Amino acid sequence: MRIALLGGTGDIGQGLALRWAHDSDHEVVLGSRDPERAREKAEEYETELASLGRERKVTGFANGMAADRADVVVLAVPAYHLTDTVEAVADGLDENTVLVTPAVGMKRDDDGFHYNPPPGGSVAALAAEAAPEGVPVVGAYHNLAAGRLADLETDLDWDTPVFGDDEDAKETVVRLTEDIEGLRPLDAGGLANAAEVESLTPLLINLASENDGLHDLGVKFQ
Amino acid sequence: MRIALLGGTGDIGQGLALRWAHDSDHEVVLGSRDPERAREKAEEYETELASLGRERKVTGFANGMAADRADVVVLAVPAYHLTDTVEAVADGLDENTVLVTPAVGMKRDDDGFHYNPPPGGSVAALAAEAAPEGVPVVGAYHNLAAGRLADLETDLDWDTPVFGDDEDAKETVVRLTEDIEGLRPLDAGGLANAAEVESLTPLLINLASENDGLHDLGVKFQ
Repeated sequence: MRIALLGGTGDIGQGLALRWAHDSDHEVVLGSRDPERAREKAEEYETELASLGRERKVTGFANGMAADRADVVVLAVPAYHLTDTVEAVADGLDENTVLVTPAVGMKRDDDGFHYNPPPGGSVAALAAEAAPEGVPVVGAYHNLAAGRLADLETDLDWDTPVFGDDEDAKETVVRLTEDIEGLRPLDAGGLANAAEVESLTPLLINLASENDGLHDLGVKFQ
Repeated sequence: MRIALLGGTGDIGQGLALRWAHDSDHEVVLGSRDPERAREKAEEYETELASLGRERKVTGFANGMAADRADVVVLAVPAYHLTDTVEAVADGLDENTVLVTPAVGMKRDDDGFHYNPPPGGSVAALAAEAAPEGVPVVGAYHNLAAGRLADLETDLDWDTPVFGDDEDAKETVVRLTEDIEGLRPLDAGGLANAAEVESLTPLLINLASENDGLHDLGVKFQ
């Protein structure tokens, strides 16, 4: 498959790009608003993968070009950039493209981080509203700690809930998730269940902040 | 310590009562609106514990009598009974009693379970509002699956986030939690962080419902 990671130059996008390039043979394409930055990061990831004995081609383009002809487009951008990112790539999407949203709306106060969804009730609902007619939206990867995900020398042992209304699109994301070693996808139902999944992220941040010795927290359901 | 479990005759209260009676030497008192039912359940738990070689005294009373002189009072009642339960026992509470709230407000629709907090923003906020002046409130045990918790022949390997504004009260609950084998308390910060913890419960229910082979789900943060 061809996976485009919009916002693949930082944070969760970097980790997903590196893990898919390392653990699978899927084509990994980085997207950024700045194509030069995408190209530089793609080279940087290639160098890192080669240093681990994995010779892989990773490419970088402006978001629109990265999304064009991709089978799966991961919107690894902050929630407040989600709508304009989808609009910027809309021409390259059709009903065979799966849009994946890992973003969470949060606010911070003196006590910690709090779930702060957009008016539609969840970031996933915002993505579904922004998506062109017929393009399926799937939520996944909200609860992966970016630092550990991007550190290829660290083994993962995490679950990630996957949700969406289009069962085929959800199944595609489930299979892609299984291609990353140590990551177990779990079905969390439809888009209406998004808020419960997205709320997990501020909890993980609060727990990591309040407990000595815990950092880069993920979750296992058992 | 003397632990009163209001609503200790069913669901999460039953599991906590059995585990504390089995794994620790704390005094376990069941409370119910119906004292006869509390007494019957207490006897039932004693019989079950004895069958596992653990001779323990468990007592049952009306809620007010159960809470009186307790060090810790667990409000193991549905969210919509929380305020009247606290009011019913208020005379027996003082600043040395720790009120523990494990309740979650949820609603269910065709897609699954959803977090549905009361107007104050969380069930814990509701408990803090209902509590008499000076009585500390701590949130814990929201994410323990009642069935597995109450099955003493099943080992636990779960985390439970604990939150509250009174550090001494929180520390008391942390220590009581550590007394249950296989349960790890994690500090989730203050009462303002309650919603993120309470939201985990509908997610656990949705995941158990959508994934074959998963049931009675708890969580480990790692």
